[in-house]
Amino acid sequence: MTLRNETEVEVLSRVRPEKEEIDSICLVAEMLLNAVNESGTAKGMVVGSVARNTWISGDRDIDVFMLYPPEMPREALEEEGIILGRSIASRFGGQFVEKYAEHPYVNATISGFDVDLVPCYAVTDSARIQSAVDRTPFHTRYIQSRIGGLEDDVLLMKQFSKAGGVYGSDLMTEGFAGYLCELLVLRYGGFSALIEACQSWRAGQTIDIVGHQGKQFDDPLVVIDPVDPNRNVAASVSRAQMGEFIELCRGYSASPGLEFFYPPAKDGITRDEFEQILSLRGTGLYSISFATPHQIPDIVVPQLRRSSAGIASLLERNGFVVNRYSEAMGEDHCYLLFELLVDRLPSLYTRTGPPVDNAVNAGKFSEKYLNQKVFSGPFINPDGRYAVEIMRKWVDVYSLLASDDIFSARLGKHVMRSMKRKCDVRAGNDCWNDDFQEFLGAFFNKISSVGALKKE
Amino acid sequence: MTLRNETEVEVLSRVRPEKEEIDSICLVAEMLLNAVNESGTAKGMVVGSVARNTWISGDRDIDVFMLYPPEMPREALEEEGIILGRSIASRFGGQFVEKYAEHPYVNATISGFDVDLVPCYAVTDSARIQSAVDRTPFHTRYIQSRIGGLEDDVLLMKQFSKAGGVYGSDLMTEGFAGYLCELLVLRYGGFSALIEACQSWRAGQTIDIVGHQGKQFDDPLVVIDPVDPNRNVAASVSRAQMGEFIELCRGYSASPGLEFFYPPAKDGITRDEFEQILSLRGTGLYSISFATPHQIPDIVVPQLRRSSAGIASLLERNGFVVNRYSEAMGEDHCYLLFELLVDRLPSLYTRTGPPVDNAVNAGKFSEKYLNQKVFSGPFINPDGRYAVEIMRKWVDVYSLLASDDIFSARLGKHVMRSMKRKCDVRAGNDCWNDDFQEFLGAFFNKISSVGALKKE
Repeated sequence: MTLRNETEVEVLSRVRPEKEEIDSICLVAEMLLNAVNESGTAKGMVVGSVARNTWISGDRDIDVFMLYPPEMPREALEEEGIILGRSIASRFGGQFVEKYAEHPYVNATISGFDVDLVPCYAVTDSARIQSAVDRTPFHTRYIQSRIGGLEDDVLLMKQFSKAGGVYGSDLMTEGFAGYLCELLVLRYGGFSALIEACQSWRAGQTIDIVGHQGKQFDDPLVVIDPVDPNRNVAASVSRAQMGEFIELCRGYSASPGLEFFYPPAKDGITRDEFEQILSLRGTGLYSISFATPHQIPDIVVPQLRRSSAGIASLLERNGFVVNRYSEAMGEDHCYLLFELLVDRLPSLYTRTGPPVDNAVNAGKFSEKYLNQKVFSGPFINPDGRYAVEIMRKWVDVYSLLASDDIFSARLGKHVMRSMKRKCDVRAGNDCWNDDFQEFLGAFFNKISSVGALKKE
Repeated sequence: MTLRNETEVEVLSRVRPEKEEIDSICLVAEMLLNAVNESGTAKGMVVGSVARNTWISGDRDIDVFMLYPPEMPREALEEEGIILGRSIASRFGGQFVEKYAEHPYVNATISGFDVDLVPCYAVTDSARIQSAVDRTPFHTRYIQSRIGGLEDDVLLMKQFSKAGGVYGSDLMTEGFAGYLCELLVLRYGGFSALIEACQSWRAGQTIDIVGHQGKQFDDPLVVIDPVDPNRNVAASVSRAQMGEFIELCRGYSASPGLEFFYPPAKDGITRDEFEQILSLRGTGLYSISFATPHQIPDIVVPQLRRSSAGIASLLERNGFVVNRYSEAMGEDHCYLLFELLVDRLPSLYTRTGPPVDNAVNAGKFSEKYLNQKVFSGPFINPDGRYAVEIMRKWVDVYSLLASDDIFSARLGKHVMRSMKRKCDVRAGNDCWNDDFQEFLGAFFNKISSVGALKKE
């Protein structure tokens, strides 16, 4: 029996589902299972945290997989799966939608639960999976057979990660998936041991529970999937989020307060605060907003990241100095933010040419500038290259961002399309945007998890 | 017989000494030789361009070496050499000074000539030289025995290099020594051939006339000394000056005008021009001046270079953006000049700390800033390192340069001493200095040799 501190006892009393909740969720799950099995074509299986007894009280997600024979053709599986999903959804619920991951599935609201009905292949060996969803039943069986006695530890780990903003393997969060939380608890034998152990994690940390790693990964955290030697369960975890988690664990070890599980709500900043912060920092702020592309977040989010990085590097190439940048995806609009230390430059610009000993290009370069108006040159730099001082194309950031030159930045395809349709560039106080108050607050009051809590 | 173009014929008529000049120089040289030989202890030898018949008309330098037996102890050689030098100087001239290179020598004014009387060892094999001056007689013999018929070509090459500002192996010029000019003429068989050949020189160009290179050099131009396989005669030539020379040759090939031998005098700029240029460029100019250290130029010049580079890098470390910098050594004062694209910054400064997974330093870093007033942080950067936004120490270049922090730059020893005594920092129009008008002109109207001539 693990010793829990006061905080953990309190947290468990909040996150551990009561008998009533367990009974009601099991009832619905069984009803759905039976419905799948009755179909005669597929075998039903409940997967996810409900199947593993590791769901946080109040979670309303039930994942039901419909397992078909592996020799069934892919189209038949997709078609039959959708038909069965639809029929079950309409029989018990009413409201449902079809969604697409690697193949289509049905998402329905049944008895107040958010139910996914997902077709997959019932392969007998995880080495023979035909698509990523086929792996899920193996994960569930792996955890089910081992997690007994550690369910509370998984609940604590999940609530701790959620509170710290590092729970979830989606591209916006870049954090810890539920299955990863379970594996880590298994590996270290409990929540407290995990909290201790991870404080000495280093970049490239590798955890291989069953000792069957099949290839090298260069992710910051590597947790080899016990059911697949060639898969890193922690591939989604970014360097920064791994760092945040380590920070959280250090902070919790030092002072294990309830706020690590239930942090104060993060408020956005007001327009007044925004303007005060801006004037205090003395930096140049620029925003670009445009309509959110009609694509799923997993496509848009990486494109936003690439675009803001691309624009920041365009600014740097033009001699401006970027302090930081970020990006937010709203329902209607996306919002890129750039903070500059240097947003205005003298018109003098030094262009470097080929080395003098490159006879052909040397001639071209000096010819080109000998009859142009220049500040000075062409001359020869100490490194033996030609250089000439000419007029800078862009002397301020706003003009550059508002020009067509912005499209010479490396932008995501859909982001570029949306920006070309309409693109709103603003500077300074005008960057304020009601829809992104919380994002603006986080942008300026950036603080690491532990820092934030200690400062309270 | 080489074909000369009109320009070269004209140049030769100016630089080739007439019979009268030759006779008078020979007379003095012989007189000095005899005086050395009469001493009984040393054997006299005329070296340098006079001995090689390659002096430019009007040059007044006569180098007389006093060769002592190699078994004589070093101190005896220095003492006897100075005594003999002094006695000859006072016998024929009157005015003389003692100077120091690798060992002391006498510099005297005799019959209007600038005479060096230099003691050295009469070694029989250049591999056995005891100091660098012992090598000079070998150079003279090597050239004397081969240059016959190419003397005019050497004169053209010397005048061409002088006019282009690339003649001289001293550290300020970083150009072509007289001996190097002679070797290049020998290697290519004449001035015109040299002008053609060097246009296809590349960085690292190696010329090894006698094919006995004894080691690798990574200088931009490598000319193996025919009398020493381990010496690069062109070691003094910088990448930029090698480039200038190539440029000059290209320009002269394209349009062989007299201006390549007699360029228009470079005038300095006036104070008005200086202020106009400054306002046009829109950059920030800063100067530092201090008393010239009492050392020979070969010590001071490299220290000035290192110091201006060190200060430029200090400025860059503090976030400022340097366009270029230069340095000048005057008789009384030295003058460092820095031109900045960015000389003022917001007070916000991002300090990057250790990676989160460095547990010990991580704790120190976050502790340090958690109780300080910061703009934001500590937070975790995308690269997994801590960062914090604090107040910048220096928000403008002038304050930094005028503070003691300037001594944290990498400075030459004697420069640092002089600056610590008194150091005058100025900004903008106040940087004007009457003593450095020509230097200021060259600083701003920087132009490569060919460019300058074409633009006329």
